Amino acid sequence: MYNYMHTAIEEAKKSGKDVPVGAVVVKDGKIISVAHNLREQDNDITAHAEILAIRQAERTVANWRLDGCELYVTLEPCPMCGWAILQSRISKVYFGSYDLNYGAFSKCGLDKICKTDIEIHGGICEEECDMLLKDFFTDIRV
Amino acid sequence: MYNYMHTAIEEAKKSGKDVPVGAVVVKDGKIISVAHNLREQDNDITAHAEILAIRQAERTVANWRLDGCELYVTLEPCPMCGWAILQSRISKVYFGSYDLNYGAFSKCGLDKICKTDIEIHGGICEEECDMLLKDFFTDIRV
Repeated sequence: MYNYMHTAIEEAKKSGKDVPVGAVVVKDGKIISVAHNLREQDNDITAHAEILAIRQAERTVANWRLDGCELYVTLEPCPMCGWAILQSRISKVYFGSYDLNYGAFSKCGLDKICKTDIEIHGGICEEECDMLLKDFFTDIRV
Repeated sequence: MYNYMHTAIEEAKKSGKDVPVGAVVVKDGKIISVAHNLREQDNDITAHAEILAIRQAERTVANWRLDGCELYVTLEPCPMCGWAILQSRISKVYFGSYDLNYGAFSKCGLDKICKTDIEIHGGICEEECDMLLKDFFTDIRV
């Protein structure tokens, strides 16, 4: 579990002027997609790490159904990404930092509305993931 | 307002084996993007009409900020699309049919969580939009 999150953390560091977020989709123990936030770079509000990783994974398996897949992401998904995850039938989500303002699960409870049997685990490698965001926003303020 | 929704309704009819949903983005009285649901066709869980219309509009204006734009969509957005709309800074949303199970606004209240000053109007050309869905699901059951 932790090695996949570390891959997501390394990926997050590639986000440049975008908020550093990295995501990894794993199927049968193998990474099938890796992505980072590209909103600013691509001028695309939907280009969050999770959306890009899901779309890439879908292309890899040639199916929008990602049953049995796991998603690792450094920050709790927003409602856009959270609903995409729930609809994609991903089986397990592991996220690092909590988003207590806009988190799809901790704040908006979308997993309760969707009523799937998805497993959601927050706070994985939380300190490292928090640090990514803290460093980014400190740099912006300097 | 109604002519834009009629364009969205005509676009929805192109959805083929996908649930018929059409979306239009308007800026300064001009249509800058039109899209329909392509989830099944593209094997992409994110390929809802609204997401595709937003991405197309962003490319047109070369900016992820769609301030001042209006979005017309035949069905109330799901939480994925609803959050994308809120984040894109679209100013007004007009939707046809309500989704009382999974609607981003009527069910999930995402507009309350995001706290923007977006205007949201539901039930525009509602009968026609309801009929699109009713016909589609009747055909599936036959």
